[in-house]
Amino acid sequence: MISEQELIGIAQEQSHGFIGDDAAVLPSLDGERYVISKDLLIEEVHFRIKYFTPQDLAHKALHVNLSDLAAMGAKPLYALCGIAIPSELQEYSRDFLKALTLSCKKAGIILIGGDTAASTQHLSISITVIGSAKAERLKYRNSAKAGDVLCLAGNLGFAHLGFTALENNRDTKYSSCFLRPEARIKEGLWLAEHKCITSMMDTSDGLFIDLSRLCSASGTGAIIDLNTLQDSLEPEVSLRTALEGGEDYSLLFTVNPAYLETVSKEFASQFNYSLKIIGTMTNDQAVLLHNEGGYIDLHLTPFTHFGETL
Amino acid sequence: MISEQELIGIAQEQSHGFIGDDAAVLPSLDGERYVISKDLLIEEVHFRIKYFTPQDLAHKALHVNLSDLAAMGAKPLYALCGIAIPSELQEYSRDFLKALTLSCKKAGIILIGGDTAASTQHLSISITVIGSAKAERLKYRNSAKAGDVLCLAGNLGFAHLGFTALENNRDTKYSSCFLRPEARIKEGLWLAEHKCITSMMDTSDGLFIDLSRLCSASGTGAIIDLNTLQDSLEPEVSLRTALEGGEDYSLLFTVNPAYLETVSKEFASQFNYSLKIIGTMTNDQAVLLHNEGGYIDLHLTPFTHFGETL
Repeated sequence: MISEQELIGIAQEQSHGFIGDDAAVLPSLDGERYVISKDLLIEEVHFRIKYFTPQDLAHKALHVNLSDLAAMGAKPLYALCGIAIPSELQEYSRDFLKALTLSCKKAGIILIGGDTAASTQHLSISITVIGSAKAERLKYRNSAKAGDVLCLAGNLGFAHLGFTALENNRDTKYSSCFLRPEARIKEGLWLAEHKCITSMMDTSDGLFIDLSRLCSASGTGAIIDLNTLQDSLEPEVSLRTALEGGEDYSLLFTVNPAYLETVSKEFASQFNYSLKIIGTMTNDQAVLLHNEGGYIDLHLTPFTHFGETL
Repeated sequence: MISEQELIGIAQEQSHGFIGDDAAVLPSLDGERYVISKDLLIEEVHFRIKYFTPQDLAHKALHVNLSDLAAMGAKPLYALCGIAIPSELQEYSRDFLKALTLSCKKAGIILIGGDTAASTQHLSISITVIGSAKAERLKYRNSAKAGDVLCLAGNLGFAHLGFTALENNRDTKYSSCFLRPEARIKEGLWLAEHKCITSMMDTSDGLFIDLSRLCSASGTGAIIDLNTLQDSLEPEVSLRTALEGGEDYSLLFTVNPAYLETVSKEFASQFNYSLKIIGTMTNDQAVLLHNEGGYIDLHLTPFTHFGETL
């Protein structure tokens, strides 16, 4: 069994002395705020050992958390890792922890604490990440306004295509989108510098359900323009996959329409890919889908990994 | 399945608007430091549903984490909860989350975030707690010195007696020590105010193993005086149980000997129970046990819940 001491040992090599006490002490910040998030990854619910290497899993466990910081416009600083390890996954877990410290290093953050435990059956991972941001630059999901333009930075449906292929024992160019999503940290920081970005969140459970949450928090509705959305998709991605597929970890945000053109141009020049402009926020309370024929109902259901009910 | 939205709903009632975004934003501190810790609780490894009520488990999950803050001398402020829920424990988990918000309220802290997921088999809980302290008041485990007196605030062996009885379907006066340990937050804060306390940690895995960790971090050894230790124990607690039994969440700390008498008296008058004075720190690298016959070896093994290897 990997002991907490061993986890500490693995982490201490790169932690600058942060690790080893009952708790980790965060340095005081000069004019900024700490931002904190935690996400679980459970074997056979969020991942399968048979096609996730320890390195894939470490990357994903970290980046699904970093994506939450990106969505707030925060700069990642630290991570803590809790891991419950079944007896048959000792070696896998050791490799996972080594890979996690490397993933942290690559992301420029420090692993400052953690906890290990035995697990009777499945591997269970809990990551907590801490970042910082100037208070006035933080983006929330409750501040979208009717008339704002709905945009997305990142992919739609890629992770779902990768997931489906992997489940069917096929390895495609989309596999890595499911196995190793990249948190859009730079984009989050860049967008956070723009006051015209009125709200932001990441897409983890699927565009439609995540947009519903943004609308609900902001007290607005939204209309997704299906024709524009369709035009922004890769040929392999159906409209339904784009709306329902989860785990893309793209940034969903709203823009004051007066600044859309500028932001859109500058974003493309900064990041070498284009924002997807997919709809408009409304005063209605519903998320509606619209095409040339009017409003339509696709009877969408949220993404649920391997059959869990969200 | 309990959704993250429902967890958020339960938590939002008492969270003063903290919850709902991708991450929680911590207010800036005036001259203090944030202190953060996380601990896992896994069903059939750390707890069994058959004798833990949801309220017991909520209390324990929170307090084993708060104990880490107490051991640093930090004041608890916030908690985050990740929970992976098997389908047959929906109602139990809902009650757990309700009880957790009450336990947080009782401890004067705010639940500011969380994550829910399905679990294929066992209930898995990950709590992250955040506290604050003045930097100069924080206590670490790497600062004990040879000649310091080794003390303990709290019980030894009670949780183990409770655990053993519960495992044998008996309910004793020690059951609550295992089911609902109280983090010694006030004691931790009080001790942190005293410069003569040279190091501190909590006892979670057992006195002997935890003391070994304190010694290892400080580069010291220690001698436990078995006669004094024996005198401080309840008649039901054997020396071995006191040294090996885990989960008491007492505070283990070292005191500059010049201040021992004062601290000891003031502590007793402040908290209505006495410190246990159990040994001395040494320049040696080993943790030794001593009685009137000299040094003895009890061939101790660390506490391991339900058979896990630490």
